[in-house]
Amino acid sequence: MKPFMDDNFLLTTETARELFAIAQPLPICDFHCHISPKEVAENKPFRSITAAWLGGDHYKWRMMRIAGVPERYITGDASDLEKFKAYAGALQFAVGNPLYHWTHLELQRFFGIYEPLTARNAVEIYEKCNDLLTEGMRPQEIIARSNVAIVGTTDDPTDDLKWHDILADSRINESGARIVPSFRPDRAMNILANGFREYTALLGEAADIEIDSFSTLCEALASRIDYFSERGCRVSDHGPAFIKHAPISCVKADEALKAALAGKPVAEEQYVAFYNTLLAFLAAQYQKHGWTMCLHIGAVRNINPTLFKSIGADAGSDVMGDLSVSSQLAAILSDMASVTELPRTLLFSLNDKENYSLAVIAGALQKDGAASNVGVGPAWWYHDQLEGMRKHMKELAAVSVLSEFVGMTTDSRSFLSYPRHEYFRRIFCEQLGQWVENGEYPYDAAALSEIVRKVSCENALRIFQ
Amino acid sequence: MKPFMDDNFLLTTETARELFAIAQPLPICDFHCHISPKEVAENKPFRSITAAWLGGDHYKWRMMRIAGVPERYITGDASDLEKFKAYAGALQFAVGNPLYHWTHLELQRFFGIYEPLTARNAVEIYEKCNDLLTEGMRPQEIIARSNVAIVGTTDDPTDDLKWHDILADSRINESGARIVPSFRPDRAMNILANGFREYTALLGEAADIEIDSFSTLCEALASRIDYFSERGCRVSDHGPAFIKHAPISCVKADEALKAALAGKPVAEEQYVAFYNTLLAFLAAQYQKHGWTMCLHIGAVRNINPTLFKSIGADAGSDVMGDLSVSSQLAAILSDMASVTELPRTLLFSLNDKENYSLAVIAGALQKDGAASNVGVGPAWWYHDQLEGMRKHMKELAAVSVLSEFVGMTTDSRSFLSYPRHEYFRRIFCEQLGQWVENGEYPYDAAALSEIVRKVSCENALRIFQ
Amino acid sequence: MKPFMDDNFLLTTETARELFAIAQPLPICDFHCHISPKEVAENKPFRSITAAWLGGDHYKWRMMRIAGVPERYITGDASDLEKFKAYAGALQFAVGNPLYHWTHLELQRFFGIYEPLTARNAVEIYEKCNDLLTEGMRPQEIIARSNVAIVGTTDDPTDDLKWHDILADSRINESGARIVPSFRPDRAMNILANGFREYTALLGEAADIEIDSFSTLCEALASRIDYFSERGCRVSDHGPAFIKHAPISCVKADEALKAALAGKPVAEEQYVAFYNTLLAFLAAQYQKHGWTMCLHIGAVRNINPTLFKSIGADAGSDVMGDLSVSSQLAAILSDMASVTELPRTLLFSLNDKENYSLAVIAGALQKDGAASNVGVGPAWWYHDQLEGMRKHMKELAAVSVLSEFVGMTTDSRSFLSYPRHEYFRRIFCEQLGQWVENGEYPYDAAALSEIVRKVSCENALRIFQ
Repeated sequence: MKPFMDDNFLLTTETARELFAIAQPLPICDFHCHISPKEVAENKPFRSITAAWLGGDHYKWRMMRIAGVPERYITGDASDLEKFKAYAGALQFAVGNPLYHWTHLELQRFFGIYEPLTARNAVEIYEKCNDLLTEGMRPQEIIARSNVAIVGTTDDPTDDLKWHDILADSRINESGARIVPSFRPDRAMNILANGFREYTALLGEAADIEIDSFSTLCEALASRIDYFSERGCRVSDHGPAFIKHAPISCVKADEALKAALAGKPVAEEQYVAFYNTLLAFLAAQYQKHGWTMCLHIGAVRNINPTLFKSIGADAGSDVMGDLSVSSQLAAILSDMASVTELPRTLLFSLNDKENYSLAVIAGALQKDGAASNVGVGPAWWYHDQLEGMRKHMKELAAVSVLSEFVGMTTDSRSFLSYPRHEYFRRIFCEQLGQWVENGEYPYDAAALSEIVRKVSCENALRIFQ
Repeated sequence: MKPFMDDNFLLTTETARELFAIAQPLPICDFHCHISPKEVAENKPFRSITAAWLGGDHYKWRMMRIAGVPERYITGDASDLEKFKAYAGALQFAVGNPLYHWTHLELQRFFGIYEPLTARNAVEIYEKCNDLLTEGMRPQEIIARSNVAIVGTTDDPTDDLKWHDILADSRINESGARIVPSFRPDRAMNILANGFREYTALLGEAADIEIDSFSTLCEALASRIDYFSERGCRVSDHGPAFIKHAPISCVKADEALKAALAGKPVAEEQYVAFYNTLLAFLAAQYQKHGWTMCLHIGAVRNINPTLFKSIGADAGSDVMGDLSVSSQLAAILSDMASVTELPRTLLFSLNDKENYSLAVIAGALQKDGAASNVGVGPAWWYHDQLEGMRKHMKELAAVSVLSEFVGMTTDSRSFLSYPRHEYFRRIFCEQLGQWVENGEYPYDAAALSEIVRKVSCENALRIFQ
Repeated sequence: MKPFMDDNFLLTTETARELFAIAQPLPICDFHCHISPKEVAENKPFRSITAAWLGGDHYKWRMMRIAGVPERYITGDASDLEKFKAYAGALQFAVGNPLYHWTHLELQRFFGIYEPLTARNAVEIYEKCNDLLTEGMRPQEIIARSNVAIVGTTDDPTDDLKWHDILADSRINESGARIVPSFRPDRAMNILANGFREYTALLGEAADIEIDSFSTLCEALASRIDYFSERGCRVSDHGPAFIKHAPISCVKADEALKAALAGKPVAEEQYVAFYNTLLAFLAAQYQKHGWTMCLHIGAVRNINPTLFKSIGADAGSDVMGDLSVSSQLAAILSDMASVTELPRTLLFSLNDKENYSLAVIAGALQKDGAASNVGVGPAWWYHDQLEGMRKHMKELAAVSVLSEFVGMTTDSRSFLSYPRHEYFRRIFCEQLGQWVENGEYPYDAAALSEIVRKVSCENALRIFQ
């Protein structure tokens, strides 16, 4: 029996251990996450480990609810200690859930705690964590000691990026960590949403352009892309809930937008044409600026009406849909490639049944001489766990070139989640090790080392070069 | 080389073996199956092992047909011995098929036969089995010696449950085994089926209510739910062939029903509104009675016209469809949750590509303070086999809390299928053992034991408390 | 650590090695591929290993593009040596990609080269391969020394099969290898394609029948089937891009065809009716002639507009779609089975999410007394790799009878790809070995040997008997 989560956690072969020794000290490029630049800049200490862990982490909330923990101990008015005890009591039975490993990696790496968390030792661990947290383990310290090179936040085009400006001049910068914005224009694209007209007013203001047509919308967004680019942004992010093909048409896009701005109904077909046409315009802008375009596809939001009423969005009731995506997306990207050179692009599907086909589609859309110009992103959300990552790596390896894989990003709302990069690297090195030890790939130290470095961070860092 | 199917079958680690020693003696809660309460009550001896095995088991029929066995030796007029020999001859090459393990577990546990069944020893084994079967291994004896606590049959709302009444007073009860009905109202919901009007007449009679509207249909079903509940029923079961979202509307449901009763055409949209509205009504009833609602989704029935003509339904030509289910089901359950507290619910998909998303959807729909109020059922039908169960467990563990998993049920038509619970428990304990031996979960004997007990039977037994 | 790709490559148990010793010397039945009968007949020597490997292999092209190799070194005007070096440089990082194993199996088996190919030794290996290639390793020699019994090419119904006639009388025949045609009538079925009218003229000429109606089209195809059958054809192959159910209707089929021939628009519904009706007609013909019908479903073609313009079709930008296929196909085959006895049929899905359901559907459509009359084909294209084949075998085993599996075919455009049969057999024997060594299947040498022989080649050879 291997000891519980020791130095060789997930590493079963000598080759895997050698490779992980290369991977471990490499910097982290967390190119896509949801931490708040304001919180990093303000750098306030955490009230408790409960605040750090359960403050906004819907993964943990979901797990506790499934375990039968009353909502009072999850998002309600119970004390921080009570909540922590409830979390410990639920977690100890969540065998095979990534939270089990994430929690213990965080206890080990940040708090030096190596024993399994249970209801029995919850109070003791709670106090030990709190002691360390209040002794100065604030957001910037956590980022600095995690060997993070880049953090990509998620920002609206209307954002003035004030906090990013402050951070660019702050001490965190001296640690080598850059907090850069990402461009997420979903609100500018969902013309059917409530508040779209108010949003375009805000966007027009930010860009100093009156938005009254498709072309002025494009102009405004292009202006904001310039603004973001000057502040280090190199990634855009889109979260379409569905993917439908329709031919690119500026005329239809203009009709759709004008109808929406006039408060008139927009037919689905018009909306789809608008969406794809705008996406093609933005893709051309991204390409011009050397950005990477991320498409996060397939989340169905807020299916629990009780939670949505009481807590709001991001409460743990977003789920994966199962609509067919790949055929439609192939047609959309194919059209896009006829009108512009594709930017570097990363595809993500919340339903992993699409990942194989997305990897194949990506492979067909390369740019002459550019490695993995279109590729599949890290195993996303519900698939960002041991078995999900293993499956993802093996599928990618089979139909792509694994050394060009962009690797890992946390996509997290938590400041303590950087050990997930270690988790990914262990799984990746173990997989390489298995291929080598099975005689399926030669023990070529130079090649293996290059693959490890590229996938652990270099491919992701290349986004920002 | 491990010996063939010995005591340590599927158990490769010390931890797995320890855990299985806990699991093995636990009672069986077979909460959903298709055995006939009449046959249990009548308790007639089997004519032969062929009658017990090949009498109605479409799994075996399918396998024999694929192996090229002529239909005469499957469902035709060949003798019992000829059929048994044909089965043995086909089975011996069905490596990797669950029938291979089920057959040998049954030979071992019920008949003390430990050698592999082949064409060579078929006659000898046939005779040995028959000797034991006619020596008193009748349905009630099989159930009693299998350590079965609860058997949930599948019953129509019009059923008077006479055989359940008889069983409640019978000797089988003394063994600790209760045979309880389950409520399967498919025929009351499929208003497009031939004979629907005749069926409503029967249902009205059973409930002593004239069914001429949606509200009287609801009243009648509610009355039958009371009737079933008094007789120990705690499970309802639905087998929708498709899942389509439509808003809940009693008006539309009433229109659809009245059209159907009048023999007029019912538009698909009307039918969908009717179906979902009635399901929401029933869900509220189930919740009131503390029942568990099972949704068995996605079977496509009787695709082989020759078999359907010659043998009828359940002949082995039901298949898994591949329609998208999860997004629609999320919307349906979300609507339902807006109008009623969801009952304890178990989701089953016949196409396992939906299982991941169903588990995620279930996790989003919990009830405050109730463990796994909505969950995914056991790996169903074509997935109820070694690899299918392994995949199912690992997916559930990753996005849910495995200790709350409802575990196993046979869904079987055969009295000899209880060793499938042992099969499930071996696979489950092996999985836990691997996590522990790999250092991925601590060797915490108390926690592991609790997980084993809950998943092996306690979670399923909780359905009936 | 196992040595890199030695004699025991992929074989980790004694049983696996014993079984592979049985499999290894068995002849190869490559019942479906895309090599050119003209090139076999002309039997010209290869200019270089680059010509043999990179001349038309879109697998390799894709891999090189993803690795960032400029197109000039892939399909452009770089020299053969430059291209080979570019391939070696890309391949050395493609860990987990089937090309890695295919390339080294081919280096070992055809060229006696056992070291891993890298950028460092590329020149040396290039020269060694070229020396051997020009020393007489021409197409016929490659086929003969690969122990190939049958090669099934892919041919249009209008083809006069001249090269097959020449080959039937040639020396390759003496080696035991037969090059037989396959019937691929896609162009006769896609009435929406450009050039359909011109094609029907050609087809009419070949059959000496004027095609002006559905019945004359059927007549012409039936005549070509006779022609192909006389020349040893026993396989037909269809590549529908989509699968949609519509009732069989000769009237609608006739309307659709006449509209197409008159240059009038054909509604999708009409086209679907035409397609399915013609498929049912052809299926009946195939059944009459004892042919096997292959359905290769789900490729989406040429999604990269740049590659399509510069290189044309089959350039590496065909991808897997994700449309739902199984439910529709079940309905189509069910209809077909009502009007004709199904021919032996092999189902292939380019998206492996359908493979489970296809295997289940196939199992439901057997013919009385014929083993695996409808079955699933080998893991196809993007799934024809280590993990893909493993998954495929295990899924098939679970819901079918593995000994009746048709096994392997290369589907290749390359003369050097026969070692993929060895690759398949190693994986298959390893899987059997694991079941035996785990105690999940008995060590029954006779049964195991029979399974190995059937799946390695006998089941495929049965197509031609």
